[in-house]
Amino acid sequence: MKIILDAMGGDYAPLSPLEGAARAVKELGVSIVLCGDEAKIRQAAEEKQIPLDGITILPAEDVITMEDQPTAIMKEKKNCSMSVGLQALSSGEGEAFVSAGNSGALLVGATMITRRIKGIKRAAMAPLLPTGNGHAILMDGGANLECRPEMLEQFGIMGSVYMDKVMQLPMPRVAIINNGAEECKGRELEQEAYKLLDADDLNFIGNIEARDIPSGDADVLVTDGFTGNIVLKLYEGLGKFFGSKLKEMFSGAGKIGAVFMRDKITDFKDSFDYKKVGGAVLLGIQKPVIKAHGSSDGEAFFHAIRQAKKCADGKVCETISESLAARKAAQSAAADES
Amino acid sequence: MKIILDAMGGDYAPLSPLEGAARAVKELGVSIVLCGDEAKIRQAAEEKQIPLDGITILPAEDVITMEDQPTAIMKEKKNCSMSVGLQALSSGEGEAFVSAGNSGALLVGATMITRRIKGIKRAAMAPLLPTGNGHAILMDGGANLECRPEMLEQFGIMGSVYMDKVMQLPMPRVAIINNGAEECKGRELEQEAYKLLDADDLNFIGNIEARDIPSGDADVLVTDGFTGNIVLKLYEGLGKFFGSKLKEMFSGAGKIGAVFMRDKITDFKDSFDYKKVGGAVLLGIQKPVIKAHGSSDGEAFFHAIRQAKKCADGKVCETISESLAARKAAQSAAADES
Repeated sequence: MKIILDAMGGDYAPLSPLEGAARAVKELGVSIVLCGDEAKIRQAAEEKQIPLDGITILPAEDVITMEDQPTAIMKEKKNCSMSVGLQALSSGEGEAFVSAGNSGALLVGATMITRRIKGIKRAAMAPLLPTGNGHAILMDGGANLECRPEMLEQFGIMGSVYMDKVMQLPMPRVAIINNGAEECKGRELEQEAYKLLDADDLNFIGNIEARDIPSGDADVLVTDGFTGNIVLKLYEGLGKFFGSKLKEMFSGAGKIGAVFMRDKITDFKDSFDYKKVGGAVLLGIQKPVIKAHGSSDGEAFFHAIRQAKKCADGKVCETISESLAARKAAQSAAADES
Repeated sequence: MKIILDAMGGDYAPLSPLEGAARAVKELGVSIVLCGDEAKIRQAAEEKQIPLDGITILPAEDVITMEDQPTAIMKEKKNCSMSVGLQALSSGEGEAFVSAGNSGALLVGATMITRRIKGIKRAAMAPLLPTGNGHAILMDGGANLECRPEMLEQFGIMGSVYMDKVMQLPMPRVAIINNGAEECKGRELEQEAYKLLDADDLNFIGNIEARDIPSGDADVLVTDGFTGNIVLKLYEGLGKFFGSKLKEMFSGAGKIGAVFMRDKITDFKDSFDYKKVGGAVLLGIQKPVIKAHGSSDGEAFFHAIRQAKKCADGKVCETISESLAARKAAQSAAADES
């Protein structure tokens, strides 16, 4: 399997993408197409003695930065590494794409170049939140600030396919993030989405209050991108906050306490570490596209590549497409009958 | 000073309100008007030998439950303890009101019976979130699911007055919870509210991302009630989640570790304990109204009563009213000039 990787995205490019790529070749048996500045990539490989076996370089002149407007990927930066990678994905030069670059540009590029799955209204940026019993996928984590009920329904469908095919969780529990558990709760958006999801064949368990997210009461968390962004960022902020509180706690623990606690704190931090999970998957695009964290190191890139491979192996995009087609056929049949 | 207390609200009524009242009389030098079922109150006082010095009982026949519709307070439950208490507040029989009962009913009752401050569009339910440097007030924590920009502006004004007068924090930093720091970020709601708050004489510091809330980067967090509810509940849920993780960590710590850690864990839990903060204040009502947590014990009621006293002492409602009047006068003067 070939995974395409944006060598120029993220805070430590191209070194970290390169490290992740080399490890993925060795441990996952994939080959990597690395898009970006060939001279810089070769220089980093030489300096750090990273072997380029199993890695081909796809040259790209330009780089889209965090300061660029998302739409620049279709205009003045159309020859950037991210765009070149997405074009390669579309033309079948690889089965999935990973980038740690500008999120907005990745969303625009994936939608305009690789394109959405037929019938999908909007692609969602779907991060995985750590919970008491594993992970929950957040649909949408920030791609679409304002949503219509049908978009939330599709988020539920896509998130279910992901949890089933990639996380090996059959019949994942789907819930709408809401201000109360009862069906009547929320704004018109949540109330209408409730009806749509309830009539669907998903394992829809109703509304979930935000306080029940961390314990893992649902596997697919459906919400608009504004709310999703708040949930994601607060998770991140509180995780960091608690981590620093923990450190404070043990600053007075003495040597024995400190040694004992070091491992515990590491375990705790690991459970909130995005590096081990991979990235946020862009669901609704025709091929798997993974957004790695901007500050990804080699390990984080390795996990993002592994996640991309799992998406391709699990045929996530194909399953979403088939699921939508089957729904449409069922609706037509029902309409014909009536 | 007289504080009116709903004796029938909360999971442990009337015992917990009674305990809180007795302690408040002793430690704060206030007198308490306790509304509710006189027989039950006297029975609880006798059984637990709680002195009724400084406490007068205002009899109320009925109780509004958590299952009742909020509007029931104006109709079939108009003789409930919450309604009787709010009427007493309006007629000047006390300077502030505390209840741990049905939040929706308290909002409806306070708005319809005690009434809003002139010029205030909507009252907000304002809880205090623990942060790295104290507390931030969340405006709105769930009273108004959908808001207009002018409502968010007023939330900023009211929250500023509260932090100044009750928390002794002059010129508190006001920020809009948003999906990015830049002025252009967010939905139309956040963009328009940004302009209004920016033109105001508050200490407006712009947008805050949810990840920066826990470290205490702002003192007044402005948002719609839907988003506010998500923030509040996720704070609560993650606090609980980390608390249980901490416990797990030390289950293998041995005796010495366990003893050492017990105090640390208690400190940590205390910093997230609503019981020590008081309740959520209903800002925008003509007199101070405090919503105590439903599961409040005697200590939590004591702190809610103390918070009510601070609101009355600090003349929070009067200051909000004056602030709005001054703004209106300035606007009229500006209109006359042009």
